[in-house]
Amino acid sequence: MQGNMMDRPLLVSSIIEHAENTHPKTEIVSRLCEKIDGPNGLTDIHRGTMKESATRAKKLANALTRHGISQGDRIATLAWNSHRHYELYFGVSGMGAVLHTINPRLFPEQLIYIINHAEDKWLFVDLSFLPLIEAIKDQVTGIEKIVILADPANMPDTTLPNVICYESLIENEDDSFSWPEFDENLGAFLCYTSGTTGNPKGVMYSHRSTVLHAMASTATDALGIGCQSCILPVVPMFHVNAWGTPFACSMVGAKMVFPGPGMDGASIWELVDSEQPDLLLGVPTVWLMLLNHMDEIGKKLDSVKNVVVGGSAAPLSMIQRFDQGHDAFLIHAWGMTEMSPIGTVNNYSSAMKGMSSEQRYALQAKQGRPVYGVEMKIVNDEGTSLPRDGKAFGNLMVKGPWITKSYYLNDDQSNFVDGWFDTGDVATIDPDNYLCLVDRSKDVIKSGGEWISSIDLENAAVGHPDLEECCVIGVAHAKWDERPLLLAIKKAGAGVSAESIKAFLSDKIVSWWMPDDVVFVDELPHTATGKLLKINLRKEYANYLIEKEELALES
Amino acid sequence: MQGNMMDRPLLVSSIIEHAENTHPKTEIVSRLCEKIDGPNGLTDIHRGTMKESATRAKKLANALTRHGISQGDRIATLAWNSHRHYELYFGVSGMGAVLHTINPRLFPEQLIYIINHAEDKWLFVDLSFLPLIEAIKDQVTGIEKIVILADPANMPDTTLPNVICYESLIENEDDSFSWPEFDENLGAFLCYTSGTTGNPKGVMYSHRSTVLHAMASTATDALGIGCQSCILPVVPMFHVNAWGTPFACSMVGAKMVFPGPGMDGASIWELVDSEQPDLLLGVPTVWLMLLNHMDEIGKKLDSVKNVVVGGSAAPLSMIQRFDQGHDAFLIHAWGMTEMSPIGTVNNYSSAMKGMSSEQRYALQAKQGRPVYGVEMKIVNDEGTSLPRDGKAFGNLMVKGPWITKSYYLNDDQSNFVDGWFDTGDVATIDPDNYLCLVDRSKDVIKSGGEWISSIDLENAAVGHPDLEECCVIGVAHAKWDERPLLLAIKKAGAGVSAESIKAFLSDKIVSWWMPDDVVFVDELPHTATGKLLKINLRKEYANYLIEKEELALES
Repeated sequence: MQGNMMDRPLLVSSIIEHAENTHPKTEIVSRLCEKIDGPNGLTDIHRGTMKESATRAKKLANALTRHGISQGDRIATLAWNSHRHYELYFGVSGMGAVLHTINPRLFPEQLIYIINHAEDKWLFVDLSFLPLIEAIKDQVTGIEKIVILADPANMPDTTLPNVICYESLIENEDDSFSWPEFDENLGAFLCYTSGTTGNPKGVMYSHRSTVLHAMASTATDALGIGCQSCILPVVPMFHVNAWGTPFACSMVGAKMVFPGPGMDGASIWELVDSEQPDLLLGVPTVWLMLLNHMDEIGKKLDSVKNVVVGGSAAPLSMIQRFDQGHDAFLIHAWGMTEMSPIGTVNNYSSAMKGMSSEQRYALQAKQGRPVYGVEMKIVNDEGTSLPRDGKAFGNLMVKGPWITKSYYLNDDQSNFVDGWFDTGDVATIDPDNYLCLVDRSKDVIKSGGEWISSIDLENAAVGHPDLEECCVIGVAHAKWDERPLLLAIKKAGAGVSAESIKAFLSDKIVSWWMPDDVVFVDELPHTATGKLLKINLRKEYANYLIEKEELALES
Repeated sequence: MQGNMMDRPLLVSSIIEHAENTHPKTEIVSRLCEKIDGPNGLTDIHRGTMKESATRAKKLANALTRHGISQGDRIATLAWNSHRHYELYFGVSGMGAVLHTINPRLFPEQLIYIINHAEDKWLFVDLSFLPLIEAIKDQVTGIEKIVILADPANMPDTTLPNVICYESLIENEDDSFSWPEFDENLGAFLCYTSGTTGNPKGVMYSHRSTVLHAMASTATDALGIGCQSCILPVVPMFHVNAWGTPFACSMVGAKMVFPGPGMDGASIWELVDSEQPDLLLGVPTVWLMLLNHMDEIGKKLDSVKNVVVGGSAAPLSMIQRFDQGHDAFLIHAWGMTEMSPIGTVNNYSSAMKGMSSEQRYALQAKQGRPVYGVEMKIVNDEGTSLPRDGKAFGNLMVKGPWITKSYYLNDDQSNFVDGWFDTGDVATIDPDNYLCLVDRSKDVIKSGGEWISSIDLENAAVGHPDLEECCVIGVAHAKWDERPLLLAIKKAGAGVSAESIKAFLSDKIVSWWMPDDVVFVDELPHTATGKLLKINLRKEYANYLIEKEELALES
């Protein structure tokens, strides 16, 4: 029994078309890399509207068509958040090509790898990132044209071949373009995620997934945005499409403020002060810079109601600083590149109404509840579902229409099990579906069949007044398979012993979680984003406890 | 170039599953037809939760499966808004059958027609509607079972065959049920719309359309609901699925208050007072009763922030009464059974911020802006698009994933043109996409190629102090094809002339809209819902002006 409803595909172009018709006057404010004659004497701020950007996206689509770009072709960007990048989002995907947003923070060899793996045909690049491309241009010869995101007055000297000026490219194009209709499951955006090992892996978002994700993210308890909202996404447009905010904002007519290259506290504050956004989005590092800057200059957030934090968990102190110092609510959101990215959001809920600040902060520290569309479960190593009791912790598996089912041109299906995506996280889920990440799967310690969170142990241990930093890894154990080992850096001049640390921990953790030993080290390895890099430590200390026991037996 | 996202179908069952996992404690409060041992000594109020209803929906799905109901079978309801009807929404559609919600206000011959046309197999019926079915039972013999929505203690004496008690039906069923996965384009709900002529026509909503409509309707500028909301949908669940609110509320965990058979002002007030909803939804008639009742007892709305009005336009005075008397914002929404139903919503917008109350009321009187997903245009009789200037008016055409492309088992495609649905309304659209309905297509007057709104003329004329009611119809004219004729009922004892009415109108309308004549009548015909029924008047007066002219020539 078929339904009788219209077969309208969910296409990204329908979002910009809706914005153009329904929210033509909504502002888009951008900080640029170049110097222009901006409003109020500002030389790096561009003010436009959704109508103007919609028109320019159509001109861009005409230009690309005229230059022979076809549906499915990959068009890359190396660009900050700006109205031009916004136009690329819609112009490229709208005509049926695929927009590949490249993270400029990748290493040169990773840049080369993904540009060649994606077979990018054109590259649109902000002035800031020209040196990156100039350095690798001989290894990315598949790129036919490089478009500089600038006006003619700001075109740079460059050694790059086949360079075009963005404003010249679109200037004389027709401003009408009929967005083509096609299958909603075609690819629209491509984004690579770089793990700690191996080559970056691509996620090819479809039109359908992009539209559904945007619809879900506008919901009241997700981003909760509408035509009166003003959003400042500090999260970059090269990072999972700025968490989908350009789509969500266009869908509902929310004003967008794009920070361009100005990611420091002072630059962000300047935009907050002048544009009065009510919602900010970004990683904790950025908010720490903003909070510190505001403290220095004695300013407070006025317009901002909510600050969405993703990428990594915000410390409790940040939740508190926003609340007590700025009357702003920190919303934890959790997701992954593989998830478009939004999985869970921890917006203000009914449950928080009756809580003390302390209780509420503790709940806010969790990753939140899934938005409609995202299903999740936790399983043990045999794949058996574990209870949603807030205590059991297991491998977090997710499913949903905006979650990838495979990596782009990659046969490895090891993260995809029976239709679920294995997130690589270990988590608890409580009876109200609040997700709490406990550890990464590869870092969790499996002691006699029971699991111990390395992160919980680190957080407990680092409270010791004599310790600078802690790292807990699982190492081989004859009886329990694995046991926790604590590696710690002492504070300068501190003379603390392993025994005193164990004593300190004894009333903070259950007894069987107690690390079998404490090793003092001078330094600990980190990833580029500041996370502990445990893989080499695990190798180095793999047999530490076994050897120690053997030594003890010998002596 | 295919995207690589999971192929997750958009199924109605995913909504109740999300509600069960994420919003298990959200309350569902229902007024029942029967007497029960309710909380706080109330004998007709049932309190439950989303978790409980989700469980009962699964028991229902098990019961239906055990009784041989298959995917695609039509299951009918004749029922008020209640937790049981809510369970039917999810239990029936979730297992793959189609829920056919019947409007009990139809005439018996229409009831017979649609039950037989839909080939309903089972019928779930509230106690109030038993007499309706008892009266027609011999003409709807395709119905195999009739389930009474009551507990065993409230089972009635009835002459109906094959009767089952709802609570007994589900009582002993297993409370686990794996919602099956199937094509999202399969039918989920069936709803008939009764025009002024011909048999009722069915609209078969798909799972996909139902889910997308729900996602769109939860948006901030649509219903704007979340887990802290409390919704009182007075709009019946047999009327376009209560505008989709049961889906929207379950998606976001909003509390629902179901008024059951209590649709009068006092009953609605009792629920408003006890449950403190922040959002009400219904037709203007209901709100008039509620406003009058509150005036009588000297009460004001306290919790209610928004009142959504659909079905027909609210008078300006109602917008004003809610604002000034109750600090509640009246949101006009416009849609049709063919549209699931939401097309446009007139929620508070940035544009209203700087307005005087009077300006704002005037804007609120419009039908609002389309939610994302609904495309609209106005065209002339040749199908050419007209400008969005707020002045030109034309036939309103709509398109979108939750708009029907044909009626159920009906070959008539006359309302479907090039992928658009012809709404039968005449409207203007302004540059910000605000829709304003001007007239019904069949009532608009086409004078020398230009269109005149019969409704605007009626509204202007009825302002005359001596007139009780006015009706304007287009009648044949030798030169202009059609010209407006005003039919008017005088107030008792008033001695007004056609000339004085024309003089009254002269500064209220453009000169070429002036009715060619005024005919005083003693009564005007209306539809069952109180709208003017112009079809017979048009026949009766078809040649009025031509004959009048001939008479004038003869004399």
